[in-house]
Amino acid sequence: MAAGRAGRADRGAGVECCIMKLDELYAELTLKTDAKLALVVLDGLGDLAVRERDYLTPLEAAVTPNLDALAKDAAQGRMIPVAPGITPGSGPGHLALFGYDPLEYAVGRGVIEALGLGLELRAGDVAARANFCTLDAQGIVTDRRAGRIETAVCEKLCALLASKITRVGDAEVIIKAGKGHRFVVVFRGPGLEGPLTDADPHREGQPIPVVQPVNAKAAKAKKAAKLVAEFYKAALPLLAKKRPANGFLMRGLAHQPEIPSFAARYQLRPACLAVYPMYKGLAQLVGMAKIEGPQTIAEQFTRYLEEYEHYDFFFIHYKYTDMHGEDGNFEAKKRAIEEFDAALPILLRQRPDVLAITGDHSTPCPIKGHSWHPQPVLLTSAWSGADKLERFTETGANLGSLGLFEAKHLLRLMQANARMFDKFGA
Amino acid sequence: MAAGRAGRADRGAGVECCIMKLDELYAELTLKTDAKLALVVLDGLGDLAVRERDYLTPLEAAVTPNLDALAKDAAQGRMIPVAPGITPGSGPGHLALFGYDPLEYAVGRGVIEALGLGLELRAGDVAARANFCTLDAQGIVTDRRAGRIETAVCEKLCALLASKITRVGDAEVIIKAGKGHRFVVVFRGPGLEGPLTDADPHREGQPIPVVQPVNAKAAKAKKAAKLVAEFYKAALPLLAKKRPANGFLMRGLAHQPEIPSFAARYQLRPACLAVYPMYKGLAQLVGMAKIEGPQTIAEQFTRYLEEYEHYDFFFIHYKYTDMHGEDGNFEAKKRAIEEFDAALPILLRQRPDVLAITGDHSTPCPIKGHSWHPQPVLLTSAWSGADKLERFTETGANLGSLGLFEAKHLLRLMQANARMFDKFGA
Repeated sequence: MAAGRAGRADRGAGVECCIMKLDELYAELTLKTDAKLALVVLDGLGDLAVRERDYLTPLEAAVTPNLDALAKDAAQGRMIPVAPGITPGSGPGHLALFGYDPLEYAVGRGVIEALGLGLELRAGDVAARANFCTLDAQGIVTDRRAGRIETAVCEKLCALLASKITRVGDAEVIIKAGKGHRFVVVFRGPGLEGPLTDADPHREGQPIPVVQPVNAKAAKAKKAAKLVAEFYKAALPLLAKKRPANGFLMRGLAHQPEIPSFAARYQLRPACLAVYPMYKGLAQLVGMAKIEGPQTIAEQFTRYLEEYEHYDFFFIHYKYTDMHGEDGNFEAKKRAIEEFDAALPILLRQRPDVLAITGDHSTPCPIKGHSWHPQPVLLTSAWSGADKLERFTETGANLGSLGLFEAKHLLRLMQANARMFDKFGA
Repeated sequence: MAAGRAGRADRGAGVECCIMKLDELYAELTLKTDAKLALVVLDGLGDLAVRERDYLTPLEAAVTPNLDALAKDAAQGRMIPVAPGITPGSGPGHLALFGYDPLEYAVGRGVIEALGLGLELRAGDVAARANFCTLDAQGIVTDRRAGRIETAVCEKLCALLASKITRVGDAEVIIKAGKGHRFVVVFRGPGLEGPLTDADPHREGQPIPVVQPVNAKAAKAKKAAKLVAEFYKAALPLLAKKRPANGFLMRGLAHQPEIPSFAARYQLRPACLAVYPMYKGLAQLVGMAKIEGPQTIAEQFTRYLEEYEHYDFFFIHYKYTDMHGEDGNFEAKKRAIEEFDAALPILLRQRPDVLAITGDHSTPCPIKGHSWHPQPVLLTSAWSGADKLERFTETGANLGSLGLFEAKHLLRLMQANARMFDKFGA
């Protein structure tokens, strides 16, 4: 009962030990099986029932005969994306879905962008999300997006920078163009670390700030900040006469963290079927194979059928629920769900042994953005049991047998449903 | 933010560190807003549905049109006061509601009583809840409450003690009369700590036990125990000829812990609207302003309206649900809920942006005391969503979107509903 520093320190030493043990326990109990698992993520799926919409969410308003049919033989629940009240970005949201504690494995935006553009990062690489901007003669940012130059122009400018700057200090520099005015810069060298503050004033009328380590004491981050400054020194003169893109901003400067590989952690060969770069990047971060090509959910499901024998775990990502939630477009979000539902029978031609359908977080239309509200989850397998729910909805999920739990546990539940865990204790 | 093995080891030192980090994360993400938040506590609200009462709880049996109306646009859930199966006192119950882990911040009864009597405690003060008793010639307790002497008598005796004893050892002694036979003693000096065992046999026919440190190794507590013994040595002779109050008992000897201030922790200006000393004391412990005066819930709500602009967070405490639960008086508890409901429209004249209505624990009539049963909670805001529940009840709350969660998270959910948290990660 004693409060105060000493008591807390004591407790600390113990709980650590507890957490390690749970993952060790899972590892110890893991059995190899032939089971196929599919995690289908409708990005930002969860929503809010509000008076203006007759207290129906898009998922409730949507006509979803195929999801309804699944619900009959499924368990449902709701998942806290990260922690109570915390609204996650896509990074923490997906890491949790992949079974990693998002408070333990933080991934900077720069890293995600780089991975999404297909760069093969190594542990310790520091990556930045960059974009061209317009500077005036005094170095003041006058247009943060350089008039949103076309991708072709961006590619040319990146090629110029890449041809002239291959190293700063003892680090290799990798530059890759993205869409529009966006690109990515990676610093690869010994002893680097993020996170760094942004080289972006976040509004016009200000100069580009000099980046600093977020943690002032981090020596490796100090070195990384120095390299970024040197990069600016070398790069800005090369752009000086370009119009409108005579400068650039860098954000989300972070290093690639060491994340235990998904395959080793779960004894599953994982593959990613995503369309948008960020989600491919997140999947790659934990070592999932990227299956390229499919552009629609129907194509993604078709490809799943084709790849069925090659992998044990499929992460299938559907973006449009989130996109329309961000716009606050109830009808479009509802339609996106209906389109998803219409494609679902393709997946079910070769039904995975364990199928989980959920979101990485909620993106409620009234909020027009990500939120902290627990997302609904449906889990169906021969061993999921059934919750006597007619449909898969937020309100129904409140009543389900999975209850309310942290998203990071879903993957372990999927493994359990795949009968991948031996009994614990006699 | 650094992940990887090193990061985990750091944090490990330990989960302690993890826990710290979650609070740090909340702090880092906190945004200032104009939102007004109100936490309305019907003390001991939760109850049990039992056959003898047609399986209705007082909350279910009560006529509550105003709570019902709120339920339409609210999220509901149930909260574990401290941990599964743990029955909390008012201290841990309220600390959890204020968002502090009640296992981390333990507050002794003496401290609460002292604060409730308006004593301004300092960190390290050791406080005792004391009351006069009757001793026989051999020092045996013959009446633990000294015939429940009147407050005026108690005040005189306390004044006598205070005039003769201002110090023991190197510590200042502060004595303050309470109601009836009750008073409080505070020891203020260097190097003191609680908790100590009670100077109270808890039944008649026994002598007053000598207090001991609860943790035998705590040097500061040993010193505090010695001071208490010296205080008895000085005080008992002064009372020797008084009748019936010729002795006194001391309980809940504890020190004022260092608790981070509510205002700093949540970036909210908090105020307390409570009638009973203990709840004022608990609020003061975390640095809430005490608004004095109101005696009824209608007066409390009226005062809330008057103070609306001066604070961001209102803790409004209603005692009678607990009081009647303690008596096992179902009808009276039901009526107390109805009286509360009748006053609710006053609060709603200026509806707070975030309103949570709950208990600090359950006080079920069949148990006639506090219990471990999760208390129902209703949370309403523009972003709470709605759970399609017609009323606010224990059974309804079981179906709500908030699920079953630890009470210490409620405040973070209220902050989220106030849009006080930035997004976590990209």
